[in-house]
Amino acid sequence: MTAPVPRCFRGFRDVFAGDLLLKQRMIETVRAVYERYGFLPLETPAVEFVDVLGKFLPEAGTPDGGIFSFRNPDLSPTAPDGDPDRWLALRYDLTAPLARVVAQYADLQRPFRRYQIGSVWRYEKPGPGRFREFTQFDFDSVGVPGSAADAEACCIICDVLEALGFGAGDYIINVNDRKILQGVLEVSGLAETDIGAEGSQASTVLRAIDKFDRLGRAGVVQLLGRGRKDETGDFTEGAHLEPSQIEKLEAYLDAKVASRSAVCDRLAGLVGSSPIGAEGVQELRDIDRYLTALGYGSDRVAFDPIVVRGLAYYTGPVFEGVLTKSIVDESGQARQFGSVYGGGRYDTLVERFTGERVPATGASVGVDRLLEAMKLLDGARRTATAQVLVTTMDKERTADYLALAQQLRRAGFATEVYLGKGAIGKQLKYADKLGYRFAVIVGGDEFAQGVAQVKDLQLGKQMADSVGSREEWRKGQPAQVTIPLGGLIDHLRGSLA
Amino acid sequence: MTAPVPRCFRGFRDVFAGDLLLKQRMIETVRAVYERYGFLPLETPAVEFVDVLGKFLPEAGTPDGGIFSFRNPDLSPTAPDGDPDRWLALRYDLTAPLARVVAQYADLQRPFRRYQIGSVWRYEKPGPGRFREFTQFDFDSVGVPGSAADAEACCIICDVLEALGFGAGDYIINVNDRKILQGVLEVSGLAETDIGAEGSQASTVLRAIDKFDRLGRAGVVQLLGRGRKDETGDFTEGAHLEPSQIEKLEAYLDAKVASRSAVCDRLAGLVGSSPIGAEGVQELRDIDRYLTALGYGSDRVAFDPIVVRGLAYYTGPVFEGVLTKSIVDESGQARQFGSVYGGGRYDTLVERFTGERVPATGASVGVDRLLEAMKLLDGARRTATAQVLVTTMDKERTADYLALAQQLRRAGFATEVYLGKGAIGKQLKYADKLGYRFAVIVGGDEFAQGVAQVKDLQLGKQMADSVGSREEWRKGQPAQVTIPLGGLIDHLRGSLA
Repeated sequence: MTAPVPRCFRGFRDVFAGDLLLKQRMIETVRAVYERYGFLPLETPAVEFVDVLGKFLPEAGTPDGGIFSFRNPDLSPTAPDGDPDRWLALRYDLTAPLARVVAQYADLQRPFRRYQIGSVWRYEKPGPGRFREFTQFDFDSVGVPGSAADAEACCIICDVLEALGFGAGDYIINVNDRKILQGVLEVSGLAETDIGAEGSQASTVLRAIDKFDRLGRAGVVQLLGRGRKDETGDFTEGAHLEPSQIEKLEAYLDAKVASRSAVCDRLAGLVGSSPIGAEGVQELRDIDRYLTALGYGSDRVAFDPIVVRGLAYYTGPVFEGVLTKSIVDESGQARQFGSVYGGGRYDTLVERFTGERVPATGASVGVDRLLEAMKLLDGARRTATAQVLVTTMDKERTADYLALAQQLRRAGFATEVYLGKGAIGKQLKYADKLGYRFAVIVGGDEFAQGVAQVKDLQLGKQMADSVGSREEWRKGQPAQVTIPLGGLIDHLRGSLA
Repeated sequence: MTAPVPRCFRGFRDVFAGDLLLKQRMIETVRAVYERYGFLPLETPAVEFVDVLGKFLPEAGTPDGGIFSFRNPDLSPTAPDGDPDRWLALRYDLTAPLARVVAQYADLQRPFRRYQIGSVWRYEKPGPGRFREFTQFDFDSVGVPGSAADAEACCIICDVLEALGFGAGDYIINVNDRKILQGVLEVSGLAETDIGAEGSQASTVLRAIDKFDRLGRAGVVQLLGRGRKDETGDFTEGAHLEPSQIEKLEAYLDAKVASRSAVCDRLAGLVGSSPIGAEGVQELRDIDRYLTALGYGSDRVAFDPIVVRGLAYYTGPVFEGVLTKSIVDESGQARQFGSVYGGGRYDTLVERFTGERVPATGASVGVDRLLEAMKLLDGARRTATAQVLVTTMDKERTADYLALAQQLRRAGFATEVYLGKGAIGKQLKYADKLGYRFAVIVGGDEFAQGVAQVKDLQLGKQMADSVGSREEWRKGQPAQVTIPLGGLIDHLRGSLA
C-alpha cells in the first residue's frame, strides 16, 4: 500500500491558533450580545434528511443542488430514490434545521428565541476566501408576527458589530422587504409574481437583483432582459421581461435615498395599488418607526431596494450587515469586506412541514468573513495562550521541571514544560515563535544553587529592536536574570505588573 | 408534493438550552485547563479523504468501516474506486486529522501542542446515550518522545475533572501500556504479536480485553479461546489461543493491585525476557516516578492491565479517565458513568504519511457523556440567560417597550421584549417557563402615570411554595410592586443585591 498523501478536500481548510484565538474571543462577544436580548442556545445535527432541508439555495441549479448529499446507509442500496429517507445531506445553513425543530417539537415555548453557532457546508466552486465549510452564528425569533422583531434583529446586528469594535460609519445595515419587489412585479403585469416559487420568472428577477453588487446596474438590467454573457463567454439566461417592465424595475433599483421615510414614499409610489406591495411598504414604515424610537438612525440602518438576499425562503423584510470601512490588507491594498450579516423574515418555513403558518425572523453572521476583517483591524495576532516555558536542560531532571511548572500553574501562570527534543537554543526559539513571555532555565548548576534563570522574551525582543539596548542593560533591566527558586513566582508577578 | 416529516436521522439529535448552557460552561472550564498547560487551538474540516483517516476504529469490521463515507462529487461518477481521491468521509475522531496536519505542514513548530473541540461521526448502531454524532475535546502533544508527556496528559485529565467539580475519589485515571500486552503475547509464543496489524491474532486479543467492562472476565476468556455467543445468539469468533496462552493472559488480567510500583513488578514478571514488554514496563515506571513527583497518587492515577483502549493506532501508554462516583439519576437509580476520557501514545500515526516517526500522545474527552454526569451533579439546570422580560400589554406601544428594554440592556440586564402573540397571562407563563427573574408590566394606565409593575418571579414562586406567604406580604416583600419608570433600574439592582 502506498502512503496516503496528507491533504484537505477542495474548499476545506485547517485553521490555526493565530486565527482561532481571535475567533474564540469574537464568538464570546457575539454570544454575549445575543444573550443580552434573551436568546437561548440550540444545537442540531450536521446531517439532515434532504427533504427536511428543502431547496432554498440560490445555487439550487448547480450539481446536487449546492449541497453535499449521500445515500442513507441504513437503507438497502436498492431502496427507491423516491423514499423520503433515501437521501441525507450536510446542512447548508442553520435556519432550515431550526424550522424542522419548531415543526418537530410541539411543546416548544413560543416565541422560541434561539442562537446557534455551527459549521455549514455548501457544494459550490471554491475560490479565494470562499470555502465549502464555514461557520455561521445565527439568532432567530420564531412565533413573532410583527415588524418589531425585524427591527430588533437590525438593532442586534448593530450591537454585535459595535461590540466587536466597528464604530458608526464602519458598517451599515441595509434593509428591504421582498413584498415590495413582488408588488412592483405585480403592477408591472408579470404573470407569476411568487418570488419563492422555484423556476418562476419572479425568482429569476430576484436572482438577477441579488447580483447587483457583483455585476452592477447594467449587468442586472441585462439579466432582467434576455440574459448576460460573462468574461469567460458563459451565458446566463435572463428573466425575459418586457422593456416597460425593466424600466419599472430600474426605477425600483434607483429608489434609494438617504432618509428611510423618503425611501418608503418612493416605494409606495412604485407599488401603487398592489396590496402585497403596500403591505411591504407598511412593514418598512413600522421598522423605521421602531428604529427611530430606539435611536438607530439611517447612518446605522438604511433602506435599500437593491437588497433582496439569495435564499428563497424569505417572505418579507430582508437585511444585511455590510462592513463599509475599507481595510488595508497585508499587501497594502484597500479592501471592502462587504456583507457579513444576512437575514430576514421567513413566515412559511415551518408551514411546509405542518401547514401551520409560524412567523419567524432572524439573521446569520458569517464568522469566517468577519474574522478576516477583525484580523486586519486587530493588527498583530496573539499566538501563545501560556506565558511561561520551562525549558528542559537536563532530561534526568524532567520530574523536577514538571513539578516546577505545576507550581507556576497553581500560582496562575499558564505554563508549558518543553517536552520535545533539542538543546536550549531550539527551546528558546520555540518559546519565541509561540509568543511566550518568559523562559525559565534551570540546569545542573542552577539546581545545585537553588536558582533559576528567567529570560523575559518580550523585553529581550524590545532590547534587540532598540538602539539603546546597552543602556537598558546598565539601567539594571536585563532580559535575563538569576532568581532564587523560592522567589520565582514573585519575580514573574512583578515583571508582569 | 407531500409535506416533509420533521425528523432527525437515526442516532442524531437536537440539544436544547438546558443542556447547552451547561455544556458551554463545561467547555470553557476544560479549555482553561488546556491553555494553562500551553496548548493552542486548531480547527480541521469535518470532511476528510478516507485514506487520510485510515482504518483504526474498533468497529472497522462493520458496514463502511464504522464511518459515514460518500463519493467525491468533484470527480466523475465513473472515476475508479481505486483513485485515492474517490472517497470522502466525516471524521471519526480528532486524532487522525491531527496526524494529517502534522504531516502536511512542514513548518509547524515542534512540539506541536494543540487542543481541538469538534463533532465526530461514527456509523454505528445507535442506542440509549449512544449517538452517531458527538463532541470530543482533545489535547495532544506531537513531537514528544519521553514518558513525561504521557504523565503530563494524566495530570491534565485529573486537573480537568477536578476543575469540573469531581473530587478525589469521584474519578480515577487508569493507565496501562500496550507494549506490555505485546510482551506477554510474545513470551506466550504467539506468532503474530503486532497489536496494530488489522486482522492479526494479537488485535483480536486486544479487542477481547477491551470488552472486559461489558463482558467481565469470563466473557473475555471465552473470546480469547474459541469465541462467545451473546444473549441474542450472535456468535463472536474468538482469538483461538492455546489453553496455556489463555492462562498467561488471565494472570495478566489479574495483575492489578493498589500500588503502581507493585503492578509494574507483577507485569515485569509476566513479560519476562520480551524486550518490547520490558520497554512497556519501564515506561510505566517512568510515568509512576513523574506522577509521584507531582503529587498525583494512586488514588487519582492507577495502573490497570485491563485498560487497552479500542483504537488501533495506540503504540505505548494508554489511559482512560473513569467517573467512579455513582450518581443517582432522575428515576432514582444509581448509575456509573464509566469512561469519559480516553487517550494514549501513537508514535506511528504521522509516519504512515511521511515515513518519519513522530512521537505523540494525548487524550480526548467525550463531552456529551461528561455533560450527562455533570447534569446529575449540578442538579437544577439553568434555562434563561436573560433576567428581565418586558411584557407587551398594548401592541400600539411596542416602540416604547423596545426602548425600555434597550435601557435595561445598557444598564446590564439581559432583557427580552415579548414579541409573540398572547395576553399577559400567557406572557408571564412564558417568563416563568424560561426561568426569567423579573417581568416588567407597563399598560396604558402605567404609561399615563409613568410607572411600571415589576413582578419578581422567583420571589413569587417562593411565596407560592411557602405556607407563610401571607406573612411575606405583610413584611412588605410582595412579589409584585409598582415602581416609577425612572427608578426601575435601581429597583432591579436592589432586588438582585
